[in-house]
Amino acid sequence: MDTRPIGIFDSGVGGLTVINKVLRLLPNENIIYFGDTARVPYGNKSKETIIRFSKEIVKYLLGFKVKLIVVACNTASSLSLETLKRSFSVPVVGVIKPGVEEALKVSRNKRIGVIGTEATISSNTYKKAIENIDKSFFVIQKSCPLFVPLVENMHLYDDIAVRVAENYLSPIFNKGIDTLILGCTHYPLLKNVIQRIAGRDIELIDSSMAVARHVKRLMERRNLIGGSIRPYTKFFASDNTENFSKLAKIFLRKSITARRVIF
Amino acid sequence: MDTRPIGIFDSGVGGLTVINKVLRLLPNENIIYFGDTARVPYGNKSKETIIRFSKEIVKYLLGFKVKLIVVACNTASSLSLETLKRSFSVPVVGVIKPGVEEALKVSRNKRIGVIGTEATISSNTYKKAIENIDKSFFVIQKSCPLFVPLVENMHLYDDIAVRVAENYLSPIFNKGIDTLILGCTHYPLLKNVIQRIAGRDIELIDSSMAVARHVKRLMERRNLIGGSIRPYTKFFASDNTENFSKLAKIFLRKSITARRVIF
Repeated sequence: MDTRPIGIFDSGVGGLTVINKVLRLLPNENIIYFGDTARVPYGNKSKETIIRFSKEIVKYLLGFKVKLIVVACNTASSLSLETLKRSFSVPVVGVIKPGVEEALKVSRNKRIGVIGTEATISSNTYKKAIENIDKSFFVIQKSCPLFVPLVENMHLYDDIAVRVAENYLSPIFNKGIDTLILGCTHYPLLKNVIQRIAGRDIELIDSSMAVARHVKRLMERRNLIGGSIRPYTKFFASDNTENFSKLAKIFLRKSITARRVIF
Repeated sequence: MDTRPIGIFDSGVGGLTVINKVLRLLPNENIIYFGDTARVPYGNKSKETIIRFSKEIVKYLLGFKVKLIVVACNTASSLSLETLKRSFSVPVVGVIKPGVEEALKVSRNKRIGVIGTEATISSNTYKKAIENIDKSFFVIQKSCPLFVPLVENMHLYDDIAVRVAENYLSPIFNKGIDTLILGCTHYPLLKNVIQRIAGRDIELIDSSMAVARHVKRLMERRNLIGGSIRPYTKFFASDNTENFSKLAKIFLRKSITARRVIF
């Protein structure tokens, strides 16, 4: 039994969607969550900057002797995962591969849409990951640079969210896709709005459940499973914003306070 | 004649709108511009974080022996100007007061709208500044948290910009205002879209010209005017993003490269 915590990080609140799923499958794990709320969003920043931010956060999490790190941010997973894996000996799990595997299982017509930040989409990480597994899939990608700001500013169900989403999504929904990968951990918070525009024929892939299953398998294989009787989840953030607490309350169904960390 | 440069900073590209105006009135000045593109936007972050970022940038600019600093960011002006003035001996100019003075001159019906980031609006800095000068003015404020992300992601004239702007602005345009303060240096880049929704009867106050006039007066008073024959403008940014160069090209009408700075 390994009681060391799991480290989970994101640019902001998006990674909170992963915590719930991990705790559903692994209820006796301790978790350290870090949200980089002072520097959010990552999605329109350069690869070098995203790698620098990610390394800083991993070093911070290692201070808690974490046994595994989940990069619960698609932008950081797309651009920094390989560097993190090379630079640190702790196992590091990203969110791209689990989401892709899920989408390939779900799609029947082999036409998949992927939405994500500018940085994620222009890295082509999803397209390459899908084509590496099966070249016969048609992949259409679309960056939605305002979706993270929408979520971080609490525009979750309102008219602005609907208008922005329609504008980004209508062009890709005309391409006959039956599956849409939500390629950013913030996007599940816009699921209602996105599904309304997508209609019933398009299945949305929220990779957080797939990530949790992947984490569980890996931990079993490496003998990292914990068994804390009163497991804790601790929250740290580079800025203490009201929205962080508000969104955490909505998605974790309890009030939390994040401790502010500056590095 | 004082050939030391003027320092100008913003959270991102917004402050570029101020450079042009300063150079129009003071064509022989050297300028050091810093855009905090790795941590943009500021508008939904906490006061403590915005003060910390602003101080770091002022310290960086002081390394260039700047003779004056322009906080070309309304969020930083609203939340950190007083602290910066207390903490540093160099003259520091914000963008709030010049914009307010301009608006009071322009308005005929004494009904003024103010739009800005969440942090600027909830600080009530504009409302207080107007009421300090003349209590008989009616001030209606509205935060537009997606406007900075719109600009930073190059949504300047498109349908998304129009839809978001309509949604934020229609409620305040029903209140009989004749003057609207663009309380964020990013917003002049959305001027066409905003004016289209505002119609002809509402005058938009872009404070950048008022800021330039204020800077000129202050420099004359303090004997800081420079007279470089071949003045330079140097650009520094915490991240080198493609959008920074693209927007700089649009608004400065020339190609520039920003040097990346990490601190």
